[in-house]
Amino acid sequence: MSGSVYGNSFIVSTWGESHGEGIGVVIDGCPAGLPISEDVIQVYLDRRKPGRTEYATPRKEDDRLQILSGVFEGRTTGTPISMVIYNENHRPYDYSEISKYYRPGHADYTYDQKYGFRDYRGGGRSSGRETGGRVAAGAVAATILKELGITVYAYTKSIGPISIDYQKCQKEYTYQSPVNMPDLEASAKAEAYILKQREEHNSVGGIIECIVSGMPAGIGQPVFDKLDAALTKAVMSIGAVKGVEIGDGFAVATKTGYENNDSFFCDSENRITKLSNHAGGILGGISDGTEIILRAAVKPTASIARPQRTVNKNNENIEIEIQGRHDPIIVPRAVVVVESMVAITLVDYLFQGMTSRMDRIKEFYKR
Amino acid sequence: MSGSVYGNSFIVSTWGESHGEGIGVVIDGCPAGLPISEDVIQVYLDRRKPGRTEYATPRKEDDRLQILSGVFEGRTTGTPISMVIYNENHRPYDYSEISKYYRPGHADYTYDQKYGFRDYRGGGRSSGRETGGRVAAGAVAATILKELGITVYAYTKSIGPISIDYQKCQKEYTYQSPVNMPDLEASAKAEAYILKQREEHNSVGGIIECIVSGMPAGIGQPVFDKLDAALTKAVMSIGAVKGVEIGDGFAVATKTGYENNDSFFCDSENRITKLSNHAGGILGGISDGTEIILRAAVKPTASIARPQRTVNKNNENIEIEIQGRHDPIIVPRAVVVVESMVAITLVDYLFQGMTSRMDRIKEFYKR
Amino acid sequence: MSGSVYGNSFIVSTWGESHGEGIGVVIDGCPAGLPISEDVIQVYLDRRKPGRTEYATPRKEDDRLQILSGVFEGRTTGTPISMVIYNENHRPYDYSEISKYYRPGHADYTYDQKYGFRDYRGGGRSSGRETGGRVAAGAVAATILKELGITVYAYTKSIGPISIDYQKCQKEYTYQSPVNMPDLEASAKAEAYILKQREEHNSVGGIIECIVSGMPAGIGQPVFDKLDAALTKAVMSIGAVKGVEIGDGFAVATKTGYENNDSFFCDSENRITKLSNHAGGILGGISDGTEIILRAAVKPTASIARPQRTVNKNNENIEIEIQGRHDPIIVPRAVVVVESMVAITLVDYLFQGMTSRMDRIKEFYKR
Amino acid sequence: MSGSVYGNSFIVSTWGESHGEGIGVVIDGCPAGLPISEDVIQVYLDRRKPGRTEYATPRKEDDRLQILSGVFEGRTTGTPISMVIYNENHRPYDYSEISKYYRPGHADYTYDQKYGFRDYRGGGRSSGRETGGRVAAGAVAATILKELGITVYAYTKSIGPISIDYQKCQKEYTYQSPVNMPDLEASAKAEAYILKQREEHNSVGGIIECIVSGMPAGIGQPVFDKLDAALTKAVMSIGAVKGVEIGDGFAVATKTGYENNDSFFCDSENRITKLSNHAGGILGGISDGTEIILRAAVKPTASIARPQRTVNKNNENIEIEIQGRHDPIIVPRAVVVVESMVAITLVDYLFQGMTSRMDRIKEFYKR
Repeated sequence: MSGSVYGNSFIVSTWGESHGEGIGVVIDGCPAGLPISEDVIQVYLDRRKPGRTEYATPRKEDDRLQILSGVFEGRTTGTPISMVIYNENHRPYDYSEISKYYRPGHADYTYDQKYGFRDYRGGGRSSGRETGGRVAAGAVAATILKELGITVYAYTKSIGPISIDYQKCQKEYTYQSPVNMPDLEASAKAEAYILKQREEHNSVGGIIECIVSGMPAGIGQPVFDKLDAALTKAVMSIGAVKGVEIGDGFAVATKTGYENNDSFFCDSENRITKLSNHAGGILGGISDGTEIILRAAVKPTASIARPQRTVNKNNENIEIEIQGRHDPIIVPRAVVVVESMVAITLVDYLFQGMTSRMDRIKEFYKR
Repeated sequence: MSGSVYGNSFIVSTWGESHGEGIGVVIDGCPAGLPISEDVIQVYLDRRKPGRTEYATPRKEDDRLQILSGVFEGRTTGTPISMVIYNENHRPYDYSEISKYYRPGHADYTYDQKYGFRDYRGGGRSSGRETGGRVAAGAVAATILKELGITVYAYTKSIGPISIDYQKCQKEYTYQSPVNMPDLEASAKAEAYILKQREEHNSVGGIIECIVSGMPAGIGQPVFDKLDAALTKAVMSIGAVKGVEIGDGFAVATKTGYENNDSFFCDSENRITKLSNHAGGILGGISDGTEIILRAAVKPTASIARPQRTVNKNNENIEIEIQGRHDPIIVPRAVVVVESMVAITLVDYLFQGMTSRMDRIKEFYKR
Repeated sequence: MSGSVYGNSFIVSTWGESHGEGIGVVIDGCPAGLPISEDVIQVYLDRRKPGRTEYATPRKEDDRLQILSGVFEGRTTGTPISMVIYNENHRPYDYSEISKYYRPGHADYTYDQKYGFRDYRGGGRSSGRETGGRVAAGAVAATILKELGITVYAYTKSIGPISIDYQKCQKEYTYQSPVNMPDLEASAKAEAYILKQREEHNSVGGIIECIVSGMPAGIGQPVFDKLDAALTKAVMSIGAVKGVEIGDGFAVATKTGYENNDSFFCDSENRITKLSNHAGGILGGISDGTEIILRAAVKPTASIARPQRTVNKNNENIEIEIQGRHDPIIVPRAVVVVESMVAITLVDYLFQGMTSRMDRIKEFYKR
Repeated sequence: MSGSVYGNSFIVSTWGESHGEGIGVVIDGCPAGLPISEDVIQVYLDRRKPGRTEYATPRKEDDRLQILSGVFEGRTTGTPISMVIYNENHRPYDYSEISKYYRPGHADYTYDQKYGFRDYRGGGRSSGRETGGRVAAGAVAATILKELGITVYAYTKSIGPISIDYQKCQKEYTYQSPVNMPDLEASAKAEAYILKQREEHNSVGGIIECIVSGMPAGIGQPVFDKLDAALTKAVMSIGAVKGVEIGDGFAVATKTGYENNDSFFCDSENRITKLSNHAGGILGGISDGTEIILRAAVKPTASIARPQRTVNKNNENIEIEIQGRHDPIIVPRAVVVVESMVAITLVDYLFQGMTSRMDRIKEFYKR
């Protein structure tokens, strides 16, 4: 619980600051024999790159990932996989201004309270850049899931007041849309909305939705480590996320039991499924074999160019105007981070799930 | 991650089934010298007891807690505290019916998928009765927090369409209201709504809100173990919870950065606070010294007396009608469970928070 | 790391004091479907019972174990198994004397230093009685191992200067010998030696040896969690153990590489084995499929009836004579505790070992 | 428990193979404000460098450590410290020979059994080179301990049949002796013995002793996580270690209680200490404030130039002669690794020890 280590069987340990030497991740517990390459992981990293559209932060990063250990002749060896992305871009930008006061909506104040001082350059460890390590690990996790027939797919569901229309959605649109919406009409409207807010030196929030397909039934844990609880923590740990829900989520509060219960049904191929999926694929903390559905609320970017009140390190009440150009929205870049955290968590649970039954353990060790 | 063990420094391990010998909890890592007694813990347990109002489940339980270890001469010894509540009420009720099919909205199917078979008596381990162990541990955690000047207070915010009006709320009303609402007008309306739904063999959901006061700034962890992420998992692990949010939560999705940022402010006594609290007391995963605000969406009770479609163990599509009397709402009984999970999590984080700074560690060990 | 919780996949949490209400254990992570009963576990508990021979402590304990959860219709359900042994014997013995000073060789002083005070009745949590919970969990672990064809067998190798002669050993003798020696001649000599020391108000130590047969190759972890490291910690955590070695252990310090290396050999049935086993069945932290061999040095009982110098709670140097009758040797009763700790650790490693290879994970989830 | 992550509060995660890109370590949980630099850590790393004497392996490594994160303006920030040592020396050495058979005394066979294949270049992850990451983390841990007035000091106690004479020992000799013996006479004899064995294409073992001074009383945990158990595991996890003992260790097996008990004694300055230290500074798993004493038996190097029997990957019984030059002894290089593992473990326990008592927690949070 020291913050930067995650997981029990598939253990992910990230490190790095926004303007330090680089960022990286060590994965311990990845099984041996998984085909993996820097190129496959790079595809995931490129999805969280800034600068895809005109409104995004202009920081030019190549973010070239290097694998330093744990892979031999193209396959994982079962020992720790260390991956690093060097910061190409740590130019002598002047952060002395930021060092003197606490930016609203940022972790400057709380880091100072916890640690006594802070690496103020670009937010240090609390920068969104930290998620690079998560995504590199997420790419490895997604590769494992793919081998098991499981896919994790996230997209932007809404930005400010603009929501997607499921009737108009296609998965491939997600990667064409600069805001990662699977509905291109909504995407265009959302872009216009973002630009308008940016002109007003403001920023916007939104909602990310994530769907897991191909999940076997019976994965999860009762009580404290319910699968939904773990997924929720995983996603809530992403910087700007303020709320997470599973299945119908907050909507259940105004529903009745009759409306909310999902009836089980045995189909013509003798497979048990459900007639609806209000539960979002998890019952009693354990997967039921249907789609897992999760949504996360992402707050608007805290860095805005408008004047704001705050306090400086001498405890004086001041007004500040944050310099530099900043993304007016976090949502699109966070989509692949949500996918990554979900994938990492599922791998951990699938691994733990192998020891639930004595008969299957016996069979495993007989061979 | 085997499900029933929680925490890192303050470790809570619960056990027990609905209709087994009893339920219980072992706490390892409780500091020595804390005054504790069965009576203090019993007060918390009584808050989750059924049967307080006419609509609640008629199961008569005394739920008398016994402390079996870890307390000597009225104070904790620092060694494991084992607590047990024997099931007084395991009469020869006939659960053979339930054993044959999968109840919609319950964990029957997923337990069978995970474990190969299940203790079907009253839901076994997946029963809400499991939370007794959590609440006993929560009472100990709350006692620790009290010593540190921290209080955790939860209440019913809404039931179905009926919400509290903050203008009319008083904390003491919470304990007078049979549905744990701090607004007695809303409480009366909610009771009427519940009774109406019960008459229709239906059930209702709602929202619980939880406020933490007196929290010091600087408690939490960056990255994966953010304090908000941990609290979210803690609350999401309660059986019927389907969504959790911190501060403004899902509302941030449609807000702008200017609206959502909380300005820091130094008051006349030279204390730094914030002019608003959209963040809910946590920034970058670390407490900022203001109130922590959390909300949980609770689904309607899955057990309803209406006919429902489902599948039996022979994979036949059938229609069932669940027998027995059941609570038409989970929300009020879950209030103290939310408080417990939040309290346990905060204690764990406060303990871990003692090692953040070298200067304070040196000071601690100098004496 | 709060002391009384052990394991990662098969998690054992013990509780209880020597003269409190009882002792117990909760196992979380035991797979479902394992046949288990109170009677099977009782057999293990009876092996650590005092009072089998004339020299042992006369405390009469029935030590009847009760299973309170996690077992349904004779099989484990996969949820926590809670087991309790009530203290039948907590008579109003006067421990007020012991409460006032620090017994040499005991944990009285260090508990006071750590916790500020202590449950002084019979040593409280630091009493050997604590191992009851370990043995109950060990019995469950041994049952799992049996299903996998693995046996853990420990015995007394030496007591004071008397060692067993391997030529004269038979496994069944171990359970006939009151000191658990598989060589009955040595056993008789050891008994005489113990009695002589007891007459002189003294106590004796010895060595326990443990052999694991049927262990598959490939179980363990590299680096920090080497299988030998884990087994060593497991056994070193037993109260009176002061040293642990694997294979040839300390003897390797004076050997050459040529003497110490074990040559691999492929037998007529095409199985790879070794021509010798100086390594004790583990190479690089991972089992090699041959017998695992481990030895533990057990110190003489600290409680002796001779006058000894010590300090009281007023920091005065005093001379004390500990009252009551005490076992003059711990070794024989610790044999089953060693077996238990080894069995628990092996189960944990076997479970973790299921995720080492991607091909086998895929195969597991295909079915 | 996936092998390469260690610790609970001070979490050390190492990575890297003998002939991959490099080796490294990430420390999570290091408190903020600790002065640290690459130079300080380099001093520790240089102590495990090969090539100090004529008999050691000729691999020339600069082993220059770089800090990539977690340090800002010369002090730790409280966030993960990532450190890397690039492998300068991965020349195109031909390991194809080694890839085809299992070297006696090495982990080739067990890695193949666990992972299905292995990185055979120089032993891959099982190489002693892996300890570089441990020593870098150990240097940080030792810096923390120094701030708390605690020192960890290890040295070579014996090599083959040659042991140090405590009468002739001085701490500074340890760093003059090429074999890290604090007795220079014994050191010279040991060197001669090593050279003689090397001439015979053989290798030798020995014993390392480690003394911890300045340890406060009351640090440790009861039951499974006893301080001695944790230290034992820490040291046993070093590749070539086959046995570990605390205090008098295996010698207690032939001693009586009267001989083995340490009497407490209050000195003229009113401090409680002991008249002897057979226990090695730990009672009931908790430090008693006297010196902690630990010894480890280190096996002779497995790589020897003599012909040896073994099995190849076609399961054929063959005779091999391992090429290349190898250290004929591991002991001297392992001394700083023992120090590192002990230091890391003590830091973890000191941090956990801060939450043992409620009164001290209250005092901590009052300020």
